[in-house]
Amino acid sequence: MTLNPKRTVAELKELRSLTGDENGAQRIAWTDTWLRAREWFAKKLAELPVECHYDAARNNWATLRGASEACVLIGGHLDSVPNGGWLDGALNVLAALEILRRFASEFNGVPPVTIRLVDWADEEGARFGRSLLGSSAFAAAHSIAADRSRTDRDGITLEAALRRCGAEIDRFPEAERERKNARAYIELHIEQGPVLEQLGLPLGVVLGTKGVERHIVTFYGQEAHSGSTPMNARRDALGAGAKFALEIRNIARKRPDAVCTVGSLKTFPGIVTAVVGRCELTLDQRDLDPDILAEMFAEARAASQRFAEEEKCTVEWSHLWNIEPVPFHSDLIELCDQAVRELSGASHRMPSGPLHDAAEVSRAGIPTVMMFVQSLRGISHNKIEDTREEHLELAVSAFDRLASKTVDWVLRQT
Amino acid sequence: MTLNPKRTVAELKELRSLTGDENGAQRIAWTDTWLRAREWFAKKLAELPVECHYDAARNNWATLRGASEACVLIGGHLDSVPNGGWLDGALNVLAALEILRRFASEFNGVPPVTIRLVDWADEEGARFGRSLLGSSAFAAAHSIAADRSRTDRDGITLEAALRRCGAEIDRFPEAERERKNARAYIELHIEQGPVLEQLGLPLGVVLGTKGVERHIVTFYGQEAHSGSTPMNARRDALGAGAKFALEIRNIARKRPDAVCTVGSLKTFPGIVTAVVGRCELTLDQRDLDPDILAEMFAEARAASQRFAEEEKCTVEWSHLWNIEPVPFHSDLIELCDQAVRELSGASHRMPSGPLHDAAEVSRAGIPTVMMFVQSLRGISHNKIEDTREEHLELAVSAFDRLASKTVDWVLRQT
Repeated sequence: MTLNPKRTVAELKELRSLTGDENGAQRIAWTDTWLRAREWFAKKLAELPVECHYDAARNNWATLRGASEACVLIGGHLDSVPNGGWLDGALNVLAALEILRRFASEFNGVPPVTIRLVDWADEEGARFGRSLLGSSAFAAAHSIAADRSRTDRDGITLEAALRRCGAEIDRFPEAERERKNARAYIELHIEQGPVLEQLGLPLGVVLGTKGVERHIVTFYGQEAHSGSTPMNARRDALGAGAKFALEIRNIARKRPDAVCTVGSLKTFPGIVTAVVGRCELTLDQRDLDPDILAEMFAEARAASQRFAEEEKCTVEWSHLWNIEPVPFHSDLIELCDQAVRELSGASHRMPSGPLHDAAEVSRAGIPTVMMFVQSLRGISHNKIEDTREEHLELAVSAFDRLASKTVDWVLRQT
Repeated sequence: MTLNPKRTVAELKELRSLTGDENGAQRIAWTDTWLRAREWFAKKLAELPVECHYDAARNNWATLRGASEACVLIGGHLDSVPNGGWLDGALNVLAALEILRRFASEFNGVPPVTIRLVDWADEEGARFGRSLLGSSAFAAAHSIAADRSRTDRDGITLEAALRRCGAEIDRFPEAERERKNARAYIELHIEQGPVLEQLGLPLGVVLGTKGVERHIVTFYGQEAHSGSTPMNARRDALGAGAKFALEIRNIARKRPDAVCTVGSLKTFPGIVTAVVGRCELTLDQRDLDPDILAEMFAEARAASQRFAEEEKCTVEWSHLWNIEPVPFHSDLIELCDQAVRELSGASHRMPSGPLHDAAEVSRAGIPTVMMFVQSLRGISHNKIEDTREEHLELAVSAFDRLASKTVDWVLRQT
C-alpha cells in the first residue's frame, strides 16, 4: 500500500461530517462527540498491524513494532475547540495514520525502528481552560493534580469528566512510561497564521514554539463626572490604558518575529457619563528568544509606570501565566527543511506563536520538529478555517518524507 | 423671621437621616422614599402662608402671592440617584424654602412680586433613564408620551409608576400652565466638579448648560490569533480605538471649557489570545458654544476615519443623544455675579457640564440663572458628596441676595 494523501483529505471530510455541525467542529475533549471521533479512529487503526492502547492520561497510542525498539513518535490531537475548524489537530492524526499505513506495507511490515502514532488527549483545553493536558502528563512538565478541581461552565470538575472517560487523575504520572525508547517526535499542523499564504509557500519548518508572558495590567485613576470635570483635573485610567495598548505594539515591532497583544481592555464604571476610574487590560507577549521575551516584558512594565505617572494614575500587574520558549532540534529542523524543499521547491523557517503538544514533548528532552502547512486567511479556531486540498496532499507527502528521514536519523544515532 | 442659613443645613441633615441609609440618599423619583421626602417637605410648607399644589407632572408648587402677578420661580428637586449624596437637588429646595420664609416675613407678607418655589419631579431619571422629566413637561420641550413605555429594572413602566403617584402621562402637557406670568427662574446647586475648589472660591455663577453630543463609535478589524498573526498582518480594532480615545482628549484641550470623554471602551471577543476584532466605545462631548461643539464633533468623526484607515479597519457611528447648549440670561448672570461678590468677595463664571432643570426652564423662554457652591473633591452622585457647612450657609445667603435682586429686576422689566 503506497502513501495516499487524497485518502487523508477524504478521511478529514468523513470526520468533519461525523463530528461537526453547521457551526464547525465540536470535538471538545471529554465530551461524547470527542469519544465518537476516537471510536471512529480506532476502527481505522484496527485495520492495521498495530498495538493500540490508551495511557493513564487517555493519550491514544498505536504502535507498529520495528526491528529496533528505538521509537519515532508522530503525533496530533482529535479534540477541537467548540465551533472549531476541520483541520486543527485532526490533520496531524490522519496524516500520521496514512504514514503508519505506508510503513506497515513496506519492509515486510517490520520497519527499521518502531513507529508510534499518538493522539494526545485535550490539546485545546477548551472545556477546562487547561491546554496540552495529555502531552503534559507524558512530559511530566506540569503538575496535573493542581488542575483536578477546575470546572467547566456547568460546574463539572475536570476530575469527574476524566473519570467518566476512564481516566484517574492520580494515575496521570504513569503516562510518562510512554517516553521509553522515544528518540524523535514529529508533528504536522496547519499554520493558523497568515505568513505562508503571504509568502506564497505551501509548507514551512517550525523552529520552536515561542515563549509567552501573560499578565493583567490595571490602571487606577479617579472616576469623575464627564460633564463637570475639566480635562486638566482628570485622572483618566483609560488615557493610561490606551497609551499602553499602543506602546506594546511598538515594543513588538522592534523585533522581527515578536508579537505583543492587548486582547481585552475593560473600563470601570464603564458608563458614557463618567471618566474611567479603572482600566484593566490583558497583555500577551511572545518570542522564540528568551532574552528578547525578557526585554519586552521589562519594557512593557516600564512603559506602564511611565503612562501611569503621566496620567496621575497608579498601575498594578498581576501574573496570569508564562512559559519559556521551546526551540526544536536543529538536526530535525534541517531534515524538515530538506523534506519541504524536495516536495515543494522552497521552504520557510518560522517560530510558532501558538503552543502545540510538540512543545511539551520537546521539553521532555525528545528531539522534536514540526511542519506547517499554509492556512487560508490565517484563520483557525473557527468554522471557516481552511487549507487548499492540494496543499493538504502536498503536506502529507512532505511529512511522510520527513518521517522517513527521521527514521534514518534515529538509526544513525544508535 | 430673618434668613437662617444654619436652619437650611439642619434641615438637609434631617432629610438625610429620614431618607438615606449607610449607602447614601435613596430618594429615587416615584418610590416610597421619595414620596416620604415630599410628605416631610409638605409639612414644612404648611407652616407658611403659601398655596401648594402638584401640577399634572407632579412638580410641587408653593406660591407666595405678591403685589404683582409677575412671578419669580426658585427651583430644585428632592429626588436623588440611588446611593446619592445629601446635597444634589435637596440644597436648592431647602434654600428656596428658607428664602420663601424670609419673603413671607417681610413686606407684611406681600412681596412686590409673586414668589414660587418648585420641587421638580424626577430630575435625575435614575429609575427610567429619562432625566429632567417634570421640568420637560413644564417646558414642553420634549414629547413625554414617547417615554411612557420605558421600564425600570423590574419591568414596571414609567406610565404605571407615575399613575401610582397620582400622575397621568396623557395629562402632562397641563403642566405648561405653570409657566403663566413666570418672569425669572433661579436655581442653586452644588458644582459637582472640582473647579471652584481648585480656585479656592466658595461660589460661582453659571453661564448656561453645555450642549452634549453623545455617540457610540465602533471600529471593525479582524479577530486573529495573538500567537500566529504577525504585527504587520493585523487589523487591530483596539489600535484604532486607543488612538481615538487619546485624540478626543486633544480635541477638547484645544478649547478652554470643552470636555470630551470616552467613558466606556469594550473589546470583542475580548480574550487574552485574540487580536481585537471589534472595539466599541462611547463618546461624550460638551461645550457651551454650539459652534465649538459642532467643530469638536466634526473633528472626532474625521479622526475616527483617519485611525480606521491607519489600522486597516472600518468605523461606524451610532447616535445616542444630543442636546444644544443653553446659555442663561445675561442680566441675571450679572445679578448673580454681584450677589456672589457681595457675599464672598470674589466670583467665577463657568458653564455647567451636567444638565439641570434650569436648562429646560431657560429653553421655555424664561430668563434663568444658576448659582454654584463648591463641591469637595468634585464628587457627586455618591454618598461621599459633600460641601463645607460654612459654604452651604454662605450659598443660602448669596442665593437669597440673588432672589432679592431678581425681584427688583422683574419689577424694573414690568
